[in-house]
Amino acid sequence: MHTSHQQLYLGIDGGGSKCKAVILDAELQCLGEGIAGAANPFHSVEKAQKSIVDAALLALADAGFGEQQLNQLIAGVGLAGVNIPKYFDLMNAWQHPFKVMHLATDLHIACLGAHNGENGAIMICGTGSVGYVNTDGESLIVGGHGFPQGDACSGAWLGLQAVQKVLLAADDLSAQTGLTERIYHALACNDSNDLVSQLSGQGATFYARLAIHVFDAADAGDLVAQQILAQASNYFTAVFHKLMAKDPARISLIGGLQVRLKDWLAADIFSQFSDPMQAPEIGAVLFAKQKTQ
Amino acid sequence: MHTSHQQLYLGIDGGGSKCKAVILDAELQCLGEGIAGAANPFHSVEKAQKSIVDAALLALADAGFGEQQLNQLIAGVGLAGVNIPKYFDLMNAWQHPFKVMHLATDLHIACLGAHNGENGAIMICGTGSVGYVNTDGESLIVGGHGFPQGDACSGAWLGLQAVQKVLLAADDLSAQTGLTERIYHALACNDSNDLVSQLSGQGATFYARLAIHVFDAADAGDLVAQQILAQASNYFTAVFHKLMAKDPARISLIGGLQVRLKDWLAADIFSQFSDPMQAPEIGAVLFAKQKTQ
Repeated sequence: MHTSHQQLYLGIDGGGSKCKAVILDAELQCLGEGIAGAANPFHSVEKAQKSIVDAALLALADAGFGEQQLNQLIAGVGLAGVNIPKYFDLMNAWQHPFKVMHLATDLHIACLGAHNGENGAIMICGTGSVGYVNTDGESLIVGGHGFPQGDACSGAWLGLQAVQKVLLAADDLSAQTGLTERIYHALACNDSNDLVSQLSGQGATFYARLAIHVFDAADAGDLVAQQILAQASNYFTAVFHKLMAKDPARISLIGGLQVRLKDWLAADIFSQFSDPMQAPEIGAVLFAKQKTQ
Repeated sequence: MHTSHQQLYLGIDGGGSKCKAVILDAELQCLGEGIAGAANPFHSVEKAQKSIVDAALLALADAGFGEQQLNQLIAGVGLAGVNIPKYFDLMNAWQHPFKVMHLATDLHIACLGAHNGENGAIMICGTGSVGYVNTDGESLIVGGHGFPQGDACSGAWLGLQAVQKVLLAADDLSAQTGLTERIYHALACNDSNDLVSQLSGQGATFYARLAIHVFDAADAGDLVAQQILAQASNYFTAVFHKLMAKDPARISLIGGLQVRLKDWLAADIFSQFSDPMQAPEIGAVLFAKQKTQ
């Protein structure tokens, strides 16, 4: 353990399931990283603050520094939930242990990361889904809103659609589908009662794990799965057009579904996406550097 | 407080939000009633057993009897959740305090009640939705499965559809709708962020309270609300036909939505429904009497 005489930066990307931290030097070289628990202040401000410090300490240790370095860090912190003003204010009022903290939404730092600190747009399709565009001094969020009320085209949404179709098919109220066998197998169910037993109280993460079966069934020619993906693609396209109306210089697709989803988007839509250049937590440091200058 | 020398019957209708008990004499005259907490063994077997006893004691007291009468009661107990064999077996193995207990699903006792102890069919549209038909020695459940994966045409389903449409409209991704003003007003929201803040972790009961606004908006000419109800009506009709294929002597519509929903059903569907003759908890006693004979 030693201390650093150069300025170090902490980048935080915090969300509902985990908090990722990186320690970068002034040239954006990554010296260490750490992952801790959930950091969405909408769910718990206290837990978010604890997860941020936990992740920062892990990243500092990974970089070979001790706890005493914490108050030397310039922190860029991107969090889910702080798009709601109340939670932004609560997190911003935190007596944090860093030298200085610059707070932004998880969307903003992901967007800055994707475009290496420049303005642009992103669409995130992972467990949840949302679109975001950042132009000079202005930003717009399209979609999101959470599960099950929003986040169409997300992993959780795809999983829920699949389960709904399986249950309708079990009652012979809609077309039989290859999703039934795939989802029963994935969850070790014998019948729809078994399936329903497992659904009680489940949230986005559970359903998102089922999304892969929608892609697999669709690839195998299942019409029901293909219809779900066509509906997802329609929603994706509508969000895409809303973002592009703000004329961003670049747009990137981020999140766990990006690889499988691209096959279901129109070629003239997908061709307009550029690869993200940096991870969200690096974007958080780019944000902090912009604010520090 | 006194004891009874004639045989008394306990009827229990237990579900996810409450447990209703009645004390009837052998001529099915209601002597007392009581309501206690949730009694769905799928959520908690222990809590279900406690709620049943609590409700029974309240009903006994209401009828002017004391606790010592409990072990003289012939109990008919209808419960949500016991359509799953595991929970039927757990509840049936209960060392209950009654003279004897006859256990059935909440659907079966509701159906017996609706048709005064005879076979028939029911559709329940309240917080949840489900269809049930009971013919000689055979029964069939159509739909149900819970929220948000099933229960189309239920109050919870209608409320969720409404919220989804309001959020899509807020992003200008679908048609504007009078549901926005009604739901913002009902929940004291200024905007979609306010709305989303209130949705986190909410379940069927929360969404079901919003269903009335779908009917009100549709009656006021809102096209989006009318589309939601048309979709609900289509699902209802499909379930109806599945039940009628079993050729029940009667079919009844039960649950909080029945009054408003009938305006959105085709006349030749709705005209086939007969009024329920007895409440589910009376049906539970009819069941117990059948089993006792």
